[in-house]
Amino acid sequence: MKFSNFFIPTLKESPSDVKMRSHDLMIRSGMIRQETSGIYSWMPLGYRVLKKIIDKVEELHDENGINQMLMPTIQSSDIWRISNRYDTYGKEMLRIIDRNDKDLLYGPTNEEMITAIGKQYIKSYKNLPRKFYHIQTKFRDEIRPRFGVMRAREFIMKDAYSFDIDSENGEKTYCEFFKLYLKLFNQLGIPVIPVRAPSGEIGGNLSHEFHLIVSSGESEIFLDTKLLDQNFENFELNQILNLDSYTDDYYKEIENKNYFEKFRSIELGHIFLFGTKYSSSFNFNVDSENGKVVPYMGSYGIGISRIPAAAIELSNDKNGIIWPKALSPFSVHLINLNIDDSECSEFCEKLYTEINERNIDIIYDDRNERPGKKFSDADLIGIPLQIICGNSFKKNREISILKRANKDTINIEVENALDKIIKMIGCNE
Amino acid sequence: MKFSNFFIPTLKESPSDVKMRSHDLMIRSGMIRQETSGIYSWMPLGYRVLKKIIDKVEELHDENGINQMLMPTIQSSDIWRISNRYDTYGKEMLRIIDRNDKDLLYGPTNEEMITAIGKQYIKSYKNLPRKFYHIQTKFRDEIRPRFGVMRAREFIMKDAYSFDIDSENGEKTYCEFFKLYLKLFNQLGIPVIPVRAPSGEIGGNLSHEFHLIVSSGESEIFLDTKLLDQNFENFELNQILNLDSYTDDYYKEIENKNYFEKFRSIELGHIFLFGTKYSSSFNFNVDSENGKVVPYMGSYGIGISRIPAAAIELSNDKNGIIWPKALSPFSVHLINLNIDDSECSEFCEKLYTEINERNIDIIYDDRNERPGKKFSDADLIGIPLQIICGNSFKKNREISILKRANKDTINIEVENALDKIIKMIGCNE
Repeated sequence: MKFSNFFIPTLKESPSDVKMRSHDLMIRSGMIRQETSGIYSWMPLGYRVLKKIIDKVEELHDENGINQMLMPTIQSSDIWRISNRYDTYGKEMLRIIDRNDKDLLYGPTNEEMITAIGKQYIKSYKNLPRKFYHIQTKFRDEIRPRFGVMRAREFIMKDAYSFDIDSENGEKTYCEFFKLYLKLFNQLGIPVIPVRAPSGEIGGNLSHEFHLIVSSGESEIFLDTKLLDQNFENFELNQILNLDSYTDDYYKEIENKNYFEKFRSIELGHIFLFGTKYSSSFNFNVDSENGKVVPYMGSYGIGISRIPAAAIELSNDKNGIIWPKALSPFSVHLINLNIDDSECSEFCEKLYTEINERNIDIIYDDRNERPGKKFSDADLIGIPLQIICGNSFKKNREISILKRANKDTINIEVENALDKIIKMIGCNE
Repeated sequence: MKFSNFFIPTLKESPSDVKMRSHDLMIRSGMIRQETSGIYSWMPLGYRVLKKIIDKVEELHDENGINQMLMPTIQSSDIWRISNRYDTYGKEMLRIIDRNDKDLLYGPTNEEMITAIGKQYIKSYKNLPRKFYHIQTKFRDEIRPRFGVMRAREFIMKDAYSFDIDSENGEKTYCEFFKLYLKLFNQLGIPVIPVRAPSGEIGGNLSHEFHLIVSSGESEIFLDTKLLDQNFENFELNQILNLDSYTDDYYKEIENKNYFEKFRSIELGHIFLFGTKYSSSFNFNVDSENGKVVPYMGSYGIGISRIPAAAIELSNDKNGIIWPKALSPFSVHLINLNIDDSECSEFCEKLYTEINERNIDIIYDDRNERPGKKFSDADLIGIPLQIICGNSFKKNREISILKRANKDTINIEVENALDKIIKMIGCNE
């Protein structure tokens, strides 16, 4: 992508009410724009990060045999009356009346709808288990939207739902999602800690959240510090159940609090095994060898549009964002400081084409801007690897390769540039 | 994908109020489910078709240097008051009041928002031209939602927006989108006709719609029949302006009506060059070499979620859907009629794996169902190529390859199966 044709409206300052580092950097790097309170546009640079996350989420869900679908954003109040959540959900539910005076709502979550779907089509135990997911916009009318996309009203969520024949199989499915989440966040470069959580208004009695520990986080979790180095991906159900880490709400209820430490954190995922709560209220049952059985259900959410902000909280410096490789909107940022020099520009064009041909995401700053602006924009948007074609190109036929994270710089001869860059992309974590 | 783990809830009958063939087939093939009036879930099979369309739309827009972004579904009424459309838009706009009594709305289109975005960031003519697109859910509170996803209230649209320095450049951009749309629909296997259209409430004076001619279509277009064989992809602006094809509304206004024929059709795309209508009302201007200039704008829509229904209207028979290759949820449908025969099942598993390894989309019907059910489901969901492993497998070590469109069948020895299938996928239009 050429910078001249890719719209990155970087700003020197963000609005004065911006309190969180990621919010500030996302606004200033032209990733997002606030349209109204708690509602954002994802500008081209921001959308690329979102897309990387979505692609990875889809890849891992598909790999695990979870069927992708798409439920609508607008729901009828009817199904929420069946579960009795229409009246109890409160003001965070955005309620809407259509032209025919019918009560609709903007879905804050989809347990009711997926249960109605299951009830219509799943008639026999032979049709179980079933696992579905969708990636869809949700709306929760937060009383105090803040911190940009971290606590927005309109946001993008991946929510998955499972139907099993009984609690034992339901627990197995829950355990699969637990591990899938750890693998997913690991591959995204976001080290999360699973913590036991109360089920809240979703219901049920088994629930975990997945938190990123950062001092700027809004949440508080409590855990045995030896868990910080733990690899949870191979956990079995009994280990999951006995995990010594808790959300603040859950922590209040436990007794022996001796060896816990408190951490501030950001919640990025939440899974629930709520059993038959919704299937019962919808009178959803299936034929089995032992007569009618009520399917055992769970739901599994990831706050997709919150992840870019969380990654930035984790990794930035005074000059801007430092993207982890998996989330970076581009892998390489090529900076041409001699736009008016035809030899330098030809070299950059050629390198840009060659890198593109290898399917490596590259952004090429071909703008007619002064070096200071190009450097500050590059540091602000935070691509892990910067390639600088400047003075030493003309003097020594050399370019510089610079790591955004630690500013480590090497100079290399232009003849070896392509090979070296390809090698570095393999190891520039 | 194995049928046993891919949820395709086929039905024998659809609800009695279903009047259109595509609606009936999409319900019965388990592609969509109505959640409430004019609001649908895309079930896994339907979602795959949608995804193929979205991937192709993204590919061609990206190729043409149009920046992908994502504007939110919910908009503030403020920006619609600036353009004066808040009061005039009428009851199709879903109006919402949030918990703080602020007037919001579910975006039916995004001219206002993109203009506000342009105004904030684009300050100089050096920053023009700019082209953006997003693929986002829209809502129009139709008085009479009908025909399934063909005229739904909640639907998915690709809308693009352009900013140019003047009308001449604006027309050039309009012309680019015109050709892009023809290329896109061509690659999707949907032959559309461009027709001149009035600009309606969007404004401006240059507008075309892209229609698929089918007798079941809701729209009427009028055209010189020699256009039916025309390739429009290389048209220049003056040819676009002189095209002898019109929407019914536009047709009313023209004088010489001698040589036109009327066709029923489905509208799939709509482009507008509305000039400075929104930039003027937003006081959006940029610095240029000749002082302040008001940017010249256009918008370009495609009804993404209507395309699967349109394709089905174009191509089906009494047994079900016949997908064009580009939209088919899978390329090959492997049907095992001898699930209990270990040799046959082993062969099918091996073939399934080999086809998968070649990145060919395959669905393998490994269900424990009788042959009649497997055949009728296969015809209903309409994958272009069916591979049948039945009686002749055991008798003669042969399988059958059947084209869904015309039922042409060939028997081949199992040893040659893979090569033959790969060859046929290359040419099974």
